[in-house]
Amino acid sequence: MPLPADIHSFALAIRFGSIRAVSRGLSWIEAGGERAEALSESLYRYTKNAYVIGVTGAPGSGKSTLVTALVKEMRTRSFTVGVLAVDPSSPFSGGAILGDRIRMNDISGDDGVFIRSMATRGVLGGLCRAAADGVDLLSASGKDYVIVETVGVGQDEVDIMRLAHTTLVVSVPGLGDDVQALKAGIIEIADIHVVNKADREGANRTIAELQALLAMKMAVKNGWNPPVVACVAMHNTGISELLDEIERHRIFLKNSGEMNKQLRMIAESRVLNIAQNLLAQRLVDPSHCPDGLLAKQIERVARRELSPYRCAKDLFERAATSNAEQERLSSNV
Amino acid sequence: MPLPADIHSFALAIRFGSIRAVSRGLSWIEAGGERAEALSESLYRYTKNAYVIGVTGAPGSGKSTLVTALVKEMRTRSFTVGVLAVDPSSPFSGGAILGDRIRMNDISGDDGVFIRSMATRGVLGGLCRAAADGVDLLSASGKDYVIVETVGVGQDEVDIMRLAHTTLVVSVPGLGDDVQALKAGIIEIADIHVVNKADREGANRTIAELQALLAMKMAVKNGWNPPVVACVAMHNTGISELLDEIERHRIFLKNSGEMNKQLRMIAESRVLNIAQNLLAQRLVDPSHCPDGLLAKQIERVARRELSPYRCAKDLFERAATSNAEQERLSSNV
Repeated sequence: MPLPADIHSFALAIRFGSIRAVSRGLSWIEAGGERAEALSESLYRYTKNAYVIGVTGAPGSGKSTLVTALVKEMRTRSFTVGVLAVDPSSPFSGGAILGDRIRMNDISGDDGVFIRSMATRGVLGGLCRAAADGVDLLSASGKDYVIVETVGVGQDEVDIMRLAHTTLVVSVPGLGDDVQALKAGIIEIADIHVVNKADREGANRTIAELQALLAMKMAVKNGWNPPVVACVAMHNTGISELLDEIERHRIFLKNSGEMNKQLRMIAESRVLNIAQNLLAQRLVDPSHCPDGLLAKQIERVARRELSPYRCAKDLFERAATSNAEQERLSSNV
Repeated sequence: MPLPADIHSFALAIRFGSIRAVSRGLSWIEAGGERAEALSESLYRYTKNAYVIGVTGAPGSGKSTLVTALVKEMRTRSFTVGVLAVDPSSPFSGGAILGDRIRMNDISGDDGVFIRSMATRGVLGGLCRAAADGVDLLSASGKDYVIVETVGVGQDEVDIMRLAHTTLVVSVPGLGDDVQALKAGIIEIADIHVVNKADREGANRTIAELQALLAMKMAVKNGWNPPVVACVAMHNTGISELLDEIERHRIFLKNSGEMNKQLRMIAESRVLNIAQNLLAQRLVDPSHCPDGLLAKQIERVARRELSPYRCAKDLFERAATSNAEQERLSSNV
């Protein structure tokens, strides 16, 4: 395993697209910590090229099949693709649900495709940090497209979708109202709506409902009018049209200047996320917080002797104070 | 609207259980900011009493109906109840999906019950902060039980469930594999498993599968063996048994000393959450970060001229420096 000193040659192997290096790099990123950070430091300059597509939708909408079909279409057009299937619903077991299982058979053995599941947990926002670094790594490895796929419910997913340049929200005809309702929350993040399994009964109604909803909400995103694309991913129907729409959105972003705005938004949420993780680390670091102080204060909050707000402020000031400053303070005492 | 000076009398009204005060207080909490914080400061001492139950599960599992039935059972036993239906799936539209709509008819007009939906967004972790403060407020208002209900997918939901003393995970027979798979991630957080709609075909199989899964995983949580309870919430079947199991878990927590451990864990995640929100606020506060600096640094990250990690560290140190310290530094220059 390379030491931090060797990290530049390791990063170089990733940039040359070595599958083993990419794979190990993603494991580092998943685990987090200093190695992950050092790797990101070595790679960030080279992460500009990939176009990032987010795919989300209610459970059962066939996202994995859709992504597989999209990957095949991209390969037909000679683009290389990295896929990151992020699964935030598994906090403890560590196993990813979103499957490379089925599609591995379809597209394995193709050097132009790299697929990986991710289900990192740990500190708050850890998964989003890992997904962002993972997208960067795949981008640095020379992929033309990077697809990030999540189950579309919850803040984590929305945060992860914010990494994408174009976001697809996948619906499907005939899912229960309760499941469809979940879409309501993520409908606003869609740049393109995909109605998958469009050969099913009720597909036209779903498409019409979606279009009506879009018309009602006047869901024009900074000048972009999100289209509704019908697909049958299982039979590769509508997939070429979908990729055309993605390309149309990409050109729109570039020509309208929205792309730069979006890149700034992505950068902002990443930086905030990293800063917050840093704070969480500092709180458990004895050089910032004397050993046992955190536990003692938490105990007082649990007993309702100290308000959580007061406690958080005290600990924040402490975690924030630099080591040098702390030494100065103690030598003054 | 009371000024911060009047906040203690407002807090007193909440503690006396005034429905209007509770309702307005929850709106403050949902909006966040200084008022919410001041209110929490006034109330935290009085938030010890309520027993907090978390209810989560895949979409379509009938959580709302179950909660309604549970509330009715609690009322039969003369307990008062507050319900917080938290909906993290709606980041932009602000509308809560989880419905007080249907059940309002069932249990409205009863002073011993207070039901409220919450869908706050904004800064990272804002919803969890609001849910925690909301639970505290309902507890301070004298409710015997507080129920927090979420759609069970994603980190936010798991974080919110961590506020609960007893967590119920609701399953249902015959939902698709894809939907059921979502349960896998939250199965570990269950203190009690509820199979709802247990009059449906396949209920016995679902119960057996769940029990097998539990046996396989040896899912004993610190000495507690999570039971599986079958219910038909719609017909109030199994609800009394469910509340008995909740009470059994409560007694277990108390007698085993696990309750104190759990209260500490809840306090810890709250404090961390508040501290992280504080950091996010400081980063956009000109007195900590000179106006425009954040935007300038973010721009450099977006252009790949600066690594997100380096940028986050710089901004963190800056946000962390207290005003007094900043003045000292500038006067030294």
